[in-house]
Order: sequence, then structure tokens, then C-alpha cells
Amino acid sequence: MGSGVRRRDGECAARYRAAPMNKTAPSLADIRDAAARIAPHAHVTPVLRSRSLDALAGCALHFKCENLQRAGAFKFRGACNAVWSLAGEAAMHGVVTHSSGNHGAALALAAATRGIPAHVVVPEGAVRSKLAAIESYGATLHACAPTMAAREAAAEAVRLATGATLIHPYTDPRVIAGQGTAALELLTEVGRLDALIAPVGGGGLVSGCAIVAHGLDPGLAVHAAEPEGAADTWESLRRGERVTDLVPATIADGLRGIIGAINFRILREHRVDVLPVTDDEIVAAMRLLWERLKLIIEPSSATVLAAILRHRERFAGRRVGVILSGGNVDLAALPFGA
Amino acid sequence: MGSGVRRRDGECAARYRAAPMNKTAPSLADIRDAAARIAPHAHVTPVLRSRSLDALAGCALHFKCENLQRAGAFKFRGACNAVWSLAGEAAMHGVVTHSSGNHGAALALAAATRGIPAHVVVPEGAVRSKLAAIESYGATLHACAPTMAAREAAAEAVRLATGATLIHPYTDPRVIAGQGTAALELLTEVGRLDALIAPVGGGGLVSGCAIVAHGLDPGLAVHAAEPEGAADTWESLRRGERVTDLVPATIADGLRGIIGAINFRILREHRVDVLPVTDDEIVAAMRLLWERLKLIIEPSSATVLAAILRHRERFAGRRVGVILSGGNVDLAALPFGA
Repeated sequence: MGSGVRRRDGECAARYRAAPMNKTAPSLADIRDAAARIAPHAHVTPVLRSRSLDALAGCALHFKCENLQRAGAFKFRGACNAVWSLAGEAAMHGVVTHSSGNHGAALALAAATRGIPAHVVVPEGAVRSKLAAIESYGATLHACAPTMAAREAAAEAVRLATGATLIHPYTDPRVIAGQGTAALELLTEVGRLDALIAPVGGGGLVSGCAIVAHGLDPGLAVHAAEPEGAADTWESLRRGERVTDLVPATIADGLRGIIGAINFRILREHRVDVLPVTDDEIVAAMRLLWERLKLIIEPSSATVLAAILRHRERFAGRRVGVILSGGNVDLAALPFGA
Repeated sequence: MGSGVRRRDGECAARYRAAPMNKTAPSLADIRDAAARIAPHAHVTPVLRSRSLDALAGCALHFKCENLQRAGAFKFRGACNAVWSLAGEAAMHGVVTHSSGNHGAALALAAATRGIPAHVVVPEGAVRSKLAAIESYGATLHACAPTMAAREAAAEAVRLATGATLIHPYTDPRVIAGQGTAALELLTEVGRLDALIAPVGGGGLVSGCAIVAHGLDPGLAVHAAEPEGAADTWESLRRGERVTDLVPATIADGLRGIIGAINFRILREHRVDVLPVTDDEIVAAMRLLWERLKLIIEPSSATVLAAILRHRERFAGRRVGVILSGGNVDLAALPFGA
């Protein structure tokens, strides 16, 4: 593996070990605890059905609408569980992460629910509207150069200066447990499913969901939808070892992360089936979801429907749980032509 | 009143009397019956909250998401109640209406749920995607010249030829009762409210909602949001008589209809407070709802938030029910600039 590994994968870097955390996969019990912990703060998001999409896909789709979660994405679940898991003294010093996307906003909001400081390291050139969202929740922004090394160094500097706890966007077990609560709610509401599908970027969401799915029903098939332009998870599972040197190129901006080591282990253990989709398929599925479900979902969230439509033989006639991960999209830069 | 009256207002035209119907306002009991009648077919739509919109508006907003109703709008409630209210023999001959918008699609789908024919008269030049939606539910389209007189004549010709029952989009008491079920569900789910607001076009939705609101709580303030460019209801209530000669000019295509006579009577009786809003305010509110609620709502639905933001002193600190009426919008023609 080349130098790209150390730059991309904060989890492996020595500086991350400075903030000790348990890198054991959470259990179903941990995820139930997380559900209770975040209940006062997170939305129980609705599950929507669409007869026309069912007809199109040839199966019974149950959409778990995490785009309607606070801060517009499932990320709030994990961030909230991490923030409220901190011991009182550690919590006082706040939390820090590096993210210009949904995790940054989610952590900022989660910290606000506990009244503790949040520091978010953001690369220069990040989208202004996303930074405004993070700031609107009261977080302190720290600018850095737009490389992973610079982001990690800046986060570490903030950690040392403030005593804040680093909350990694997808390898932190508390985050994984929080994300799993989306599947827990879905299965609690709709009962038995034949299959469950979620998008995979760093793997926090789908690893948490796989633990819940198989904890409740070992026979439930768990799928992950991944853009072909960022198919490190697909390639990692195919090779049997983590591929960390892919340079992502996809419209699904939330899925450009590289699968985390703990997430990779969980996906292997749970035999998660990764289904690649093209950007064209993502845009077509996004349009379908906007038109038929009347929901704003971001490109990352459209991967799941794209995967079901491309690999429909896997889902034919089944009861399928579909996690719509988020709805944070720039309305002035939509991919729909006239 | 000029010739515009007879051309615009089908209810007054002699040809409408050919299909006898009871023009008495429905009661709360009728609306409860409607709720039971449509329950096997209609969605119970979710009620969403947003802390950021609450903060912006200075009140507690409870959004009833009729954009997530079948066929994408509350219109399915009224159409479904009308279709399933028909006696068996009358039902066999099907239903007819003239509409190029949400009512046409809703009636087509409602007829499909009962397995009876639907005929929808559509003016030449209607939006192709809307016609495709109506056809996709199995209705027969009948083209006519784009004037109200031609539409009414064509609908009457279909009625005479087929024996189909005319279902008017907003003056039919069965339709009004169906639309009222949206407010019934909302109040059942969230409990006591201080105020309720819905958009007003022809007045089917807000008149049904007013009957429910005051049937359950005589002290509940009922508001209607209306585009300034189609403010016939505002002007009618101000004058104390129905104004039917306004030529509408507003982005809110669902609200260009003229208030019906029965709807006007119900709004007067229930002292519904009409709040006018500009098209600029509608577009700004639409963007807020897309961004904050992650919901696709059409311009007509944005009038309610626009009205709350413009007349915020009326709502300050209150628990407000907000009916988001529909989500049928052409994604290729969005009003959001870069």
C-alpha cells in the first residue's frame, strides 16, 4: 500500500491513537443502548411506501427516511450517541472532528444538544452553505489546507489545545452503534424483512445496520450500494483486504470516504453484499425518488434505489428495507436537465 | 358580474345541475365517515417538525405532509371519498371531471382503486408530464379547447355519453369531506392546536379543514394562505360576496381556481382568516421547506409558510398546524437560481 494509505486513513495514523477508544464492534445491546441514549434528541424518522416504485422495482420497498433526521442525515444518530456517551469531565472539553460534510454538521448539532463545545476542521474551498450549516449549530470552524494530512494535523492540534475528544465520522464504535439505530427503528416498525440495503462510504451506517439486522434475524440479507467511481469497499471485499488507495470520482459526495478497518471487518463478518452503481444510475434513481416519494434526497441516498433497479433479480418479490441516508444537497446545483 | 363568472364558475352553470348533488356542507360526522371510507386506500401522512423553522417562525409548526399522499397531493382524499361514496350502479358508469392538475390525477387513481372508469377532460396545451400521470392511473383523456366553457361542455358530453358521475374538484360535498380528513388526522395525532393554516384556491381543502377544526375545538383559529395574484377569496370575504371575475396570475398553479359558492359560505361561517402572500414570498418559503424539511412541495404548498412568516404576529408562540398540500412540481423547471 502506498503513501495514500496514511494520508487517507486517519484511523491508522499514530496521532489518532492519542485519543484512546475501544475499537471493538458494537453489539446489538450497544445499539439498543444508543437508541435509548439518543431518543430525547433524535427524530424517529418515518418509513414511507410507494406503490409506483414497488411496481417499478418488482419488490416491496420500505424507505427509512433519514433525510428527515435532524441536520438532514443519519449522521446525527452516531454523533449524538458519541457525544452523550462521553463521561462528564471529558464532555466538558468538547468534541472535535474534521469534516466538511454531514458528520461535521451532525457533530456540531449533537454537541449543542449537550451544551458542550464542538470544533470542526474544514478544508479550504469547502462548500459555503455546508460551513454555514455547521456554524449555525454553534461549532467553531478551523480552516486547513485541503489534504487529509492537513485535516488530521489540524484536528490533532485542536485536540491538544482544547482537550476535546476526537469523534471519527465512521470508525468510532459509538458512531457505528448510533448509525445502527436507523435499522433498529426500521425493523421495529415494519417487522420482518427479507433484505436491507444502505449506502456505503466509510461504512459506519451499513456496519451498524448489519449488526442490528443479523442480531434480530440471521437470515436477513444485507446489501450495500456503492458508486462505481468509489468502489473501494467492493474491491476490498473481493480481494479480502482493505484497498485504501482509490481516488474517488462520483457525484455521490457523501460516499467518497474509504472503508474503515473496523467497518471492513464488520462487513466481512456479516457477508454484506456490495452492489456497485454508476453515476448515471444514481442521478436517474435520485430523480425517481424526488418525483415519486416527494423527498429531497442527496445523490448518496439514491445509490440504494439505483442498486435495486440494476440488480433487481436479487430483490424480486421481497420485502426490502431501504435506508435513505440524507437530504443535504445544493438546490442551485441540481443534476436535472430540462 | 361579467361574463367571466359563467365561464369560470362551473358550479353556477346550468349544465352542472344536470348531475344532482347535495350542496349542503358536510358535517364533522360526514368527515369521520370519509376517513373510514378512504382508510383502505389513502396514506396516513406523517406530521413533521423542524426546530430551525420553528425558530425562524417564532412558533411551533406541525407540518401535515400531504405531498406524501398518494398521487402527490391531498386531492386524493376528496376524490377517493367521492368515488367510494357512489352507489354500486352509478359507480359502474365511472366518474368524469375536467382538470389538468392534481384533481385529475387523484380522481383517476381513486377510480382505479374501485376498478371503475375515469374520464378526465384536459385542455389542449396542458403540461405533458401531468397528462402522463393521469393516464398512468388508467383514465381516459378527452382533449378540449383551453377555455372553461369548452372544458365544461366536454365534461358534460362525456357524462351524457357514458353515464359517468361528475366529480367537481372542490364544490362537491363529498370532496370537501374527504379533504377535511387531512385536518382530522393532524389533530388526532398532535392534539390541541392554537391555529391551523391551509392554502386556498377553490376552497375544498380549507373548508373541509375548518369544519373539522371547529367541530373539535371552536376556539381554534383557522387561516387560509392565498397568493396576492389570485386573491379572489380574500376579496370575496372582504366584500361579503363572491368575486369571480379575477384573472389569476401566480406561480402557485394549484391555487388559480376561483372560490366555490359552497366553499365561500363555509369560510364565512367559520370566520376563516385569509392571509395574502406574494409570489416572491412563496418562492422563498418553498426553498426554505425544501432545504429544511427535505420535502418536495409545490409552490401552492409554500403559501402557508410564506403567510406565517409574513404575518408572524398572528402565530407567535403558538402551536400551529400547517397543511402542506402537494408535491407535484416539474423538476426541470425549478425557480431556484444559482
